Amino acid sequence: MSVSPFDSKILGELFSDQKSRSLFDDEAEIKAMMQVESALARSQAKFGIIPESAAQMITEVLADTVIEPEQLSAGTASAGVPVPEFVRRLRSAVGDEAGQYLHWGATSQDIIDTGLILRLRDYLDLIEDRIENLKTALREMVRKHRSTVMVARTRSQQATPTTLGLKVAGWLAPFNQHSRRLSELRHRLLVVQFGGSSGNLSVLGGDGIEVMDQLSKELGLRAPVAPWHNQRENIAELAGFLSLITGSLGKLGEDLILLGLSEVSEVRATKGGGSSTMPQKANPIQAEALVTLARFNAGLVSTMHNCILHPHERDGPSWSLEWLALPQMAVATGTALVHANSIVSSLHVDTVRIEKNLADSSGLILAEAASFALSEFMSRAEALAMVKSACSQVLRSGDHLMTVLADMTDVPIDWDKLRDPSNHVGVSDRLIDRILNDTG
Amino acid sequence: MSVSPFDSKILGELFSDQKSRSLFDDEAEIKAMMQVESALARSQAKFGIIPESAAQMITEVLADTVIEPEQLSAGTASAGVPVPEFVRRLRSAVGDEAGQYLHWGATSQDIIDTGLILRLRDYLDLIEDRIENLKTALREMVRKHRSTVMVARTRSQQATPTTLGLKVAGWLAPFNQHSRRLSELRHRLLVVQFGGSSGNLSVLGGDGIEVMDQLSKELGLRAPVAPWHNQRENIAELAGFLSLITGSLGKLGEDLILLGLSEVSEVRATKGGGSSTMPQKANPIQAEALVTLARFNAGLVSTMHNCILHPHERDGPSWSLEWLALPQMAVATGTALVHANSIVSSLHVDTVRIEKNLADSSGLILAEAASFALSEFMSRAEALAMVKSACSQVLRSGDHLMTVLADMTDVPIDWDKLRDPSNHVGVSDRLIDRILNDTG
Amino acid sequence: MSVSPFDSKILGELFSDQKSRSLFDDEAEIKAMMQVESALARSQAKFGIIPESAAQMITEVLADTVIEPEQLSAGTASAGVPVPEFVRRLRSAVGDEAGQYLHWGATSQDIIDTGLILRLRDYLDLIEDRIENLKTALREMVRKHRSTVMVARTRSQQATPTTLGLKVAGWLAPFNQHSRRLSELRHRLLVVQFGGSSGNLSVLGGDGIEVMDQLSKELGLRAPVAPWHNQRENIAELAGFLSLITGSLGKLGEDLILLGLSEVSEVRATKGGGSSTMPQKANPIQAEALVTLARFNAGLVSTMHNCILHPHERDGPSWSLEWLALPQMAVATGTALVHANSIVSSLHVDTVRIEKNLADSSGLILAEAASFALSEFMSRAEALAMVKSACSQVLRSGDHLMTVLADMTDVPIDWDKLRDPSNHVGVSDRLIDRILNDTG
Amino acid sequence: MSVSPFDSKILGELFSDQKSRSLFDDEAEIKAMMQVESALARSQAKFGIIPESAAQMITEVLADTVIEPEQLSAGTASAGVPVPEFVRRLRSAVGDEAGQYLHWGATSQDIIDTGLILRLRDYLDLIEDRIENLKTALREMVRKHRSTVMVARTRSQQATPTTLGLKVAGWLAPFNQHSRRLSELRHRLLVVQFGGSSGNLSVLGGDGIEVMDQLSKELGLRAPVAPWHNQRENIAELAGFLSLITGSLGKLGEDLILLGLSEVSEVRATKGGGSSTMPQKANPIQAEALVTLARFNAGLVSTMHNCILHPHERDGPSWSLEWLALPQMAVATGTALVHANSIVSSLHVDTVRIEKNLADSSGLILAEAASFALSEFMSRAEALAMVKSACSQVLRSGDHLMTVLADMTDVPIDWDKLRDPSNHVGVSDRLIDRILNDTG
Repeated sequence: MSVSPFDSKILGELFSDQKSRSLFDDEAEIKAMMQVESALARSQAKFGIIPESAAQMITEVLADTVIEPEQLSAGTASAGVPVPEFVRRLRSAVGDEAGQYLHWGATSQDIIDTGLILRLRDYLDLIEDRIENLKTALREMVRKHRSTVMVARTRSQQATPTTLGLKVAGWLAPFNQHSRRLSELRHRLLVVQFGGSSGNLSVLGGDGIEVMDQLSKELGLRAPVAPWHNQRENIAELAGFLSLITGSLGKLGEDLILLGLSEVSEVRATKGGGSSTMPQKANPIQAEALVTLARFNAGLVSTMHNCILHPHERDGPSWSLEWLALPQMAVATGTALVHANSIVSSLHVDTVRIEKNLADSSGLILAEAASFALSEFMSRAEALAMVKSACSQVLRSGDHLMTVLADMTDVPIDWDKLRDPSNHVGVSDRLIDRILNDTG
Repeated sequence: MSVSPFDSKILGELFSDQKSRSLFDDEAEIKAMMQVESALARSQAKFGIIPESAAQMITEVLADTVIEPEQLSAGTASAGVPVPEFVRRLRSAVGDEAGQYLHWGATSQDIIDTGLILRLRDYLDLIEDRIENLKTALREMVRKHRSTVMVARTRSQQATPTTLGLKVAGWLAPFNQHSRRLSELRHRLLVVQFGGSSGNLSVLGGDGIEVMDQLSKELGLRAPVAPWHNQRENIAELAGFLSLITGSLGKLGEDLILLGLSEVSEVRATKGGGSSTMPQKANPIQAEALVTLARFNAGLVSTMHNCILHPHERDGPSWSLEWLALPQMAVATGTALVHANSIVSSLHVDTVRIEKNLADSSGLILAEAASFALSEFMSRAEALAMVKSACSQVLRSGDHLMTVLADMTDVPIDWDKLRDPSNHVGVSDRLIDRILNDTG
Repeated sequence: MSVSPFDSKILGELFSDQKSRSLFDDEAEIKAMMQVESALARSQAKFGIIPESAAQMITEVLADTVIEPEQLSAGTASAGVPVPEFVRRLRSAVGDEAGQYLHWGATSQDIIDTGLILRLRDYLDLIEDRIENLKTALREMVRKHRSTVMVARTRSQQATPTTLGLKVAGWLAPFNQHSRRLSELRHRLLVVQFGGSSGNLSVLGGDGIEVMDQLSKELGLRAPVAPWHNQRENIAELAGFLSLITGSLGKLGEDLILLGLSEVSEVRATKGGGSSTMPQKANPIQAEALVTLARFNAGLVSTMHNCILHPHERDGPSWSLEWLALPQMAVATGTALVHANSIVSSLHVDTVRIEKNLADSSGLILAEAASFALSEFMSRAEALAMVKSACSQVLRSGDHLMTVLADMTDVPIDWDKLRDPSNHVGVSDRLIDRILNDTG
Repeated sequence: MSVSPFDSKILGELFSDQKSRSLFDDEAEIKAMMQVESALARSQAKFGIIPESAAQMITEVLADTVIEPEQLSAGTASAGVPVPEFVRRLRSAVGDEAGQYLHWGATSQDIIDTGLILRLRDYLDLIEDRIENLKTALREMVRKHRSTVMVARTRSQQATPTTLGLKVAGWLAPFNQHSRRLSELRHRLLVVQFGGSSGNLSVLGGDGIEVMDQLSKELGLRAPVAPWHNQRENIAELAGFLSLITGSLGKLGEDLILLGLSEVSEVRATKGGGSSTMPQKANPIQAEALVTLARFNAGLVSTMHNCILHPHERDGPSWSLEWLALPQMAVATGTALVHANSIVSSLHVDTVRIEKNLADSSGLILAEAASFALSEFMSRAEALAMVKSACSQVLRSGDHLMTVLADMTDVPIDWDKLRDPSNHVGVSDRLIDRILNDTG
C-alpha cells in the first residue's frame, strides 16, 4: 500500500518491471527534455534563427550536463511545469552567450510533450517486442494443444466440448489486431509537438514550420500536420490502446484463474504463490496481477478521456491530469506483458484432469450434439424435448446421457461415436489455422 | 431526471436525436435479429445444412412477421437473453416443418452480436455523414476567419495573439484523424459473429466456416477471422472511438462556453437558452450539452473496457454490461455531432469585442514578442528582464506595453509595428493550410 | 441493446423493476415539480409575499392540471431545462391573475432539485424496505446454515473449512452498515433546494429564509442550512451509497456464480436461465445481473463525482451530467435489491455436494489445522515443513492428509478428530451472533 | 510524467505533500505491519495462546528490528503479498524459540489491512487538522467579504448580484458536512482486521474473538463486529469520502480559475506561476492543481468501487487493485488540502475590478430585480416583457438598464435605489450566519 505502487520496493516487480519503469522515471524525462532542447537548437541554427555556434555549444554542453530531478522540485511547484527552472539551469550551464538561444521561441509544453513522445517511441518498441514474444508463445501453445479436447464453459456453466488449442487461439487473436492497432497509432502519435507559446510559432518568423519539420527529422519523429498541444485525442487513444492490451491479458488472467480453481485444475501456472499460514496453497499470483492491472487501466482510461476537454490554447488541469495517469498505465501494460509471457511459457496443462472434467459431466455437455443427432430422425422440437428429459434423468441417476438416450429411443444412432467429445469440436482446427495465419 | 435520459420526452432532443435513437430502440434490435436469422437460414441452405425450402419459408415468413418488444420481456428476464423466446415465436410463425431449421446451430450471442453489428454499420454511416458535414462547416469557418486576430489564452490567462481561423482549425484537425480512425475501426468491427454454442460451430459439420463466410456475404459484412464472442476488444475500441469524438466536441463546447462568457463575449451561439427568472439570460445550451455528453462518454468508456475481461467462452455479466453502456454512448455521440453542426453553422463572431479584448490587455499579450524584438539588441536575459519590469509598470499605470518599453530603451525598434497584434500570429496561415489539406 | 436499457421492453425486468422505474419516469418528474410549485405558492402566501388567493388558486388548479412530457420537449431543448416552458404552461392553466405569482422568485434549479429530492425520499423508503427484507432473508439463511460446514476459498483456491452460515453472514454484515449509512445520508440529502436565481433569494425581501423553511415544512423535508444548488456533494454521496449497495450485492452475485459453477455446484438459484441451443443449461441469470449492475454503478459513481466540480453559482454541463447518470444508478440499485431478494429466498443449497467438495480435497484444506496441531509437539517451523511435505504426498497419492501425517509421525494426535472439518470452523458461531445482533 | 507522480522529484510538492506521502511509503507500511505483529503477540499471550515470554521477546526484538523494503521485493513478487517473507525475516530476528509464535493464527491480510487502518487513522487525523484550518480560513474570509457585492454567474453568464462572502460561504458549507462525514466514517473504518486464514479465527480455539478485541485495544482501534477481509465497503466509502473532499476543493479551484481569468480578474492567488516564454504570465497553478487532483480522485473512486466485488473469502485481484489506487487518492486529498489552505490564506481580492465588472453589465444583472419591482405596478408577464425589451435596448445602446426602463414607464419606482447592486443580495447575510454556525 504505497503511494507509488509501481516504484514500491515492497511490491517489487509484482506490478511493474524495471524496463517499463525506467522509461518513465524522472531521469528519463530530464534526458528526453535535454534531447529536445538540443535538437531544437540545431534545427533553428539550420534556418539561421539562432547562431550555428550557439547550437553547437548547446549541443555539446547539454551532452555533458546532468540535472538532478530534485533541482527542479521547487521550480515545478511554483510554475506548474519544470521547464522554466530546467531552462534556467541549462542556460546557466551553457553560458550567457549561447544560453540565451536555448529554448528559443519554444514553450514548456513543446519540451514536455515532445520529450514524452520520445519516450513513448521507445516504450512502444518495448511493448511491441513483448507482444511479439507473447504471440510466438501463444502460437506454440495453440499448436501443441490443437487436439486437446476440453470442456467449454459459457455463463459459468459447462457448455460443449472445445479444444484447448482453440481456447488459446482466442487469447492470441486480439493480439493480431493489437499489432495492427499499434502501427496505426504510431503513425498518429509519434510526432513532434512544437508550437511556441500559443501554437502558431509566432516568434520564429516565417520559418516556423521548417523548424518544426527539421526538429522532427533531428529527433527521428514524424512531423505533425500542426501543433497539437491542445488536441489530446492521440494521447487518449494511446491510453485506450494500452487498456485494450491489458484488457486482453486480463481476460487471459481470468481464464487462467478459473481453469486453475481447485475444483477445475486443468491449467495452472507451475509456480504459485505461498500463503503465510496455509501450507497447501499455491495461489495464481501472476494471473491475478493480469486482472488487477487490467481493471486499473480500465479505470484510468476514463480519466484520460476526460483530458480531451482541454480548453483554449492550453489548459493546466487537464494537461497535468495526464501526467498523473498515463505513465502508470504504460508501466501497468508493460508489466502485464511481462507476466503474460512468463505465465504462458510456464503453464502446466493437466490433461488427466481435463479428461476427468470432460467425463464428469456424464455427457451433459453433449446435450446439444445429441439433440442435433436426433434431429435427423425426428423434428428438432421433439429432439430437444427428448434431450431435455434425458438431461433431467442424468442429473438424478448419474448415468451417461448417451446411455439414457439409447434407452429412450431406438433410432439408429452410433451412440459410441456420439459419446466421444472429440467428435464435437466442430471446425476448431480450421479456425485455429485462420487465427495462426491472421495478420490483424 | 429520467431513468432513460435519451428517451425522456421532457428532455426531448437535448441529449438525443431521433436518428441515432432509432438505431438503438427495441424495434431496431428485433428487426436486426430477424435479418440475421433469415440470412442464416439462406446461408445454411446453400451448403445443404438445412433444406432450401425451409430457408425460403423462413425468409418469406420473417419478412412479414412482427414481434413486439413486450412479447420478449418475460423470456429475457428468465433466460437473460431475448433469443430463446424470440426463436420460439419465430418458429411458431414459420410453422413446425421449416421452423425447426431456424436458428440452426446458432447461439443467442450470434444473433445479438451480429444484429448489433448491423446496426452499428448504419450508425457509423450516420455519424460519418455528420462528421463530414461538421468538417465542411469548420473548414468554411476557418477560411472566413483566417485573418481574424484574437487573443490566445493559455492556462486561463491571455497569452499572445492568434487567429480565430487557427483556433477553429484546431477544432477541425482531430476530425481529420477521426475519419481515418473510423475507416480503421470499420475494418475490424463490421464483421459477423457466428460461432454456435461455444465458438467452434460444432453442430454444422465441416461447413461451419463456409456458412460463416456466406452469412457475412448475405449481410454485407466482412467475414471475421474467427468467432469473437468472448473477445470484446473491438467493441471497447468502438466505445473509445465514440468518446474520442465526443471529447473533441467537448473541447469545442468548452472553448465556446469560455469565448461566450459575459466578460469575453467573442463568439456566441446565435440563440441561447432563456432562464425561468432572469430576463437577460442567453445560456449556451448546446455548447454545454457538448461538454455534458463528452464527460458522460468519458465515464462509460471505462465501463466498456472492463467488459474485455470476459471469461471463458461466454460471460453473462461482462457481456450484458455492454448493453447498459454502449447504445447510450452511441446516441450521445450522434447527438453531440448534431449539436456541433448546429452550433458551428450558427455562431456569431463579435469582431468588435474580439478587437476590444485584444486592445484591453494594454499590450501585455505582446510581452513575448517584445522580448524577442529586444533580443536583437541585447541579450535574451536582459530583454526578458526589461519586459518583465515593463509589464509590472503596465499593470500599475495602464499604459500600453510598447509605450512603456519605448520609454525604457532607445534601441531602434519599430514600436508601432510591434504594437499591432496582427504582426504576431506567426505561421497561422500556413498551419491552417496544412490542416485544411490534411487527410488524417 | 437499447439506448434506454432500463425501459427496454426487450430487456423487461432484467435490469429494472417497475417500482424503481416509476419514480424516475417523466410523469413522476412532472408530478414532483408541480408539488414544489404548489407548495412554494402556499409558503409565500403565508408570509404575504404573494396573495393568499393566488396560492389557493395555484394549489387548486395544479391539483387538476396534467402536463404531458412531450409538451416540454421543445422548451427543454431550447432552454436547457424544462422549467421555463413548464411554468409558462402552468401559468396559462392558472390564469393571468394568479398565474403571475406562480414560481415567484424561484429559479429552474429550485424546482428540479427539490422535485428530485421528493422522489429520492420515496426512493430511499423503497430501497430501505428492500434492504430490510433482504436482511431478514439473509438472517434466516444464516440461522439455517449455521452449522453447514463447507470449503472456504481464498485467492481462488480451497483454503480451510468454514460454515455456510458465516459466509451468508458476510453477505449480511455490510447491510447492517448500509442501514446506518442510509440514515446518515437521509439527514444530509433530504432537504429542500430553494435559492432563487443565484442562491440568495434576492427577490423575496427579508423573508427568504422563512419561505425556505416553510417550503420544507410543506413538503415534509428538512430545511437546509442554505441553498446547495452549486454544492453537489450530497448528490455524489448518494451515488456512492447506491454503488456501495450494488457492490455488496455484486459480491453476493459473484459468490453465487462461483458456488454454482458446474464443477462446484454447492449453492444454486432454483430456476436458472435456459440457452437457445444447449438443452442442459441453467444459467445463473439473476446472480449475473447483480454483477452487471454493480459494475455499471461503479463506473457511473466516477461520473457523479466529476459533477462536484460545479463552477460559480450554477453550471450547465456538470448539473445536467447528473441527469444522465443518477436515475440510472437509482433504478439499477433498486432492481439489484429485487433480484437479491428473489435469489436469497429461492436458493438451493446442495449439502451433498458441499460435503463431497469438502471430502475431495483429501484433507488439504486442513493443512493449516494440522500444522497447528503438530506445533504442540514440535516447533512451528518443523510442523510447517512436515505438513508441506505431507501435502505433496497427498497430491501424488490421493491419500488423505491425516493418513499421510499419521504415517509420518507418532506424536499423540487424535487424527480422527482432526480429520473432521467441523472441528475447524473456529468461532464461526460467535461471529454469526455478533453479525446477527449488529445494528450498524 | 513519472510513473510515480506523487514521489517524482521533478514534480516536487505540486501534487503531493511530504506528510501525506510519509504515511504511505514503504517504511510506514513496514512499521505498521510490525506494530500489528507485535500487538498480536501480546494479545495472544494474554489469553495463553502463546507463551508470555514469547510475546515479550517478540515485542522487544521487533522494536529494534529494521526491515528494508527491498528485502521484501522478491518475496512479494512470488507470494503476491509481502507478509510471508516479512514473517520469515521477523521470525529469524526473534529466534526460533519465540519466533514460531509470531504471526500465530494470522493471515497476510490481517497484517496488511490492520497496518493500513493504523496509517489511515493517522491520515484522517492529518486531514482533519487541514480541514479545520481550511474552515477557519474560509470563515475569516467570509466575514471579511460579507458585504463585498459582486456578480453572480450562472451557466457561465452574469446572473444577479451576490456577495463574495456568500460565495466563500458556499465553499465552506460542504466542509461542515465533511467534518460530520469524517466522524461517521471513522466509526466504521477504524477497526482491526483479524480473521485468520478464512475469517473464522479457526486455529485460535475458543478465544479468537477475545484476541481480536484485545488486539484492537492494544492498537487503539475499535473492535470490529467480525472480520471484514472480504467486505470492502468501508474502504470504498473512504475512497468516496476522499473524492468528495477533493471534489469540493476542485469546485473552489474552478471558481478561482474563473474569477482569475484575465477578463474577470476579481480574485487571484497572490503568486502565480511563470511561463518559460511569456514574461507577463501569472498562471493559477495551485487552483489548477485542485482541479487536477479532484478529477484524478473522481476517476479512481470508480476503480475502488469495483473492488467491492471481492469473491469468496479472499480475492487476489480486487484486493490488490486497492493497493494501486487508495494511497494515491489519500495523498492527492491531503495535498489538495495543503494547496487550498495556501490559496485561501493568500488570495488577493481586487475590489476595484469587482466593482468595475458589476458596473460593466450596464445593469443587465439587475434585470430580474427590475422585473419584480415593476411587478408591483403591472402583471408579472407585462413586467417581464418590458424588462426583456429594455435588455435588448441596453445591448444595443450601452445605456444602463434602469435608465432605459425609467424612459419606458412612469411607474413610481426609486430607480436609483434599484440601480445599486448592494440592494439585491437578498438574505446573503443571514445565509452566511447559518453556514458559519452550522455543525454539519
